[in-house]
Amino acid sequence: MQYCFLNGKIIPREDAVISIDDIGLLRGYSVFDSLRIYHGKPFLLNEHLRRLKISATALSLKIPVTDKEIEKIIITLLEKNNREDAQIRILLTGGKAINGFGFDPEQPTFAIVVEPLSLPPADLYVSGGKLISTVYLRPEFAAKTTNYITAVSLAKERKMKHAVEILYLSNGNVLECSTSNFFIVKGNNLITPKDNILLGTTRNFILELVSPDFTIEERKISYEELTEADEAFISATSKEVLPIVQIDDIRIGNGKVGINTKKIMEKYTAYVNKL
Amino acid sequence: MQYCFLNGKIIPREDAVISIDDIGLLRGYSVFDSLRIYHGKPFLLNEHLRRLKISATALSLKIPVTDKEIEKIIITLLEKNNREDAQIRILLTGGKAINGFGFDPEQPTFAIVVEPLSLPPADLYVSGGKLISTVYLRPEFAAKTTNYITAVSLAKERKMKHAVEILYLSNGNVLECSTSNFFIVKGNNLITPKDNILLGTTRNFILELVSPDFTIEERKISYEELTEADEAFISATSKEVLPIVQIDDIRIGNGKVGINTKKIMEKYTAYVNKL
Repeated sequence: MQYCFLNGKIIPREDAVISIDDIGLLRGYSVFDSLRIYHGKPFLLNEHLRRLKISATALSLKIPVTDKEIEKIIITLLEKNNREDAQIRILLTGGKAINGFGFDPEQPTFAIVVEPLSLPPADLYVSGGKLISTVYLRPEFAAKTTNYITAVSLAKERKMKHAVEILYLSNGNVLECSTSNFFIVKGNNLITPKDNILLGTTRNFILELVSPDFTIEERKISYEELTEADEAFISATSKEVLPIVQIDDIRIGNGKVGINTKKIMEKYTAYVNKL
Repeated sequence: MQYCFLNGKIIPREDAVISIDDIGLLRGYSVFDSLRIYHGKPFLLNEHLRRLKISATALSLKIPVTDKEIEKIIITLLEKNNREDAQIRILLTGGKAINGFGFDPEQPTFAIVVEPLSLPPADLYVSGGKLISTVYLRPEFAAKTTNYITAVSLAKERKMKHAVEILYLSNGNVLECSTSNFFIVKGNNLITPKDNILLGTTRNFILELVSPDFTIEERKISYEELTEADEAFISATSKEVLPIVQIDDIRIGNGKVGINTKKIMEKYTAYVNKL
């Protein structure tokens, strides 16, 4: 049996239900965070918890347990669920809706769930993936809210077009993907957007990890600039560093996984293997 | 005990729960509609069901029961809950999430809930209400999704400023309120936005009801034009016709409930009293 944590208790996963009056359901008023477990150890836990706090604050939500308690719950759940490699999803809503639009920050819904890894196909890391783009600026972009209507709506088209992710554009600039951050490499420059996006923990970790090897530019990338990129990749907790060789009809570089992207992938893998 | 309908069954309201894996919670992938019951009779039921279909189609969701069945369920719930005047909320999500972003349209979550009326204070209909504005264009504006993060976030400020609703602006035009439509009166012209908004059933009903009395203009209203309005009001299922006398720092007309707005309110009330 699998277990999860819901509102103060560890319970069987199948018993984890919320009221249909929860404001997370009724008004989509909810934030979450996802982190990766490597060999039984939470990766970038503090960074994820820091971001969960940013998300919660943006929506005036209150996390009902301490960071230390969250760590303890995660370790307990991994043991009870007998998992070494997994993803952890932490969900926080305003709890039961009061008169439609109100909620009591002291009575949130708070869940921690262990999920099996859902990884992209391995061959994508060898041949590179494709992105499709759409014009979309996430509202409350600095918070990791559960508002993914655009991404879910486009999932079918994405699959039909054999794309691994959806790249969001706004005002002619590329921003982020639906659950990933976006990077290009030009010469020795590693370039990634900084504004109007969710600053991914994996993104931030990569920038630190490879800062000795590249000139880092956190700045706007116009859609046109994609044609000048030598390489591109996306980053996410589950996807790690995933090379991108095509965006809509634009071939990136020579259409093959770039040498610098490979180096970043290797450095990332080496790091997490040592955890 | 109160009852509701959930996934094919009428059950006690307190037992109405959904899985924490529901895509309506995890990804905010959900639509709904609310309708009013007057003296035991659903008001504008067909219009609300028509819009629910528009919302469902926009998100590729499938309503699992027929219109006739929905009507029967509503009548049964009103009897079992012993209610004559109430609101009905119909909620439709993609059901259990499949691999994070997928869902089976044949296995939705579908709920029908009876709610007590939550009406604005009666004195607002005499003295007129106030709106505060914010720049916001609802994504998927033609669908009544559960994405109300902006409205919930601003609820505290709205209350502090004694405003009854939040008016959304985009590109210098007024669009709609968080759960209401917006109208102004200029001379004998009744003017209301038409594009980039949710077309409210109450809005559409009012336009039909008073079309003999006014020149109807469905068109853009700029924020500046508010200073030229003689009168203003908002409409919604629960609020009916609610006069507005102030928007941010702009006094509408002479700051009192307008004579035409009063006429529309009276005509509306006369109509629903005869139901």
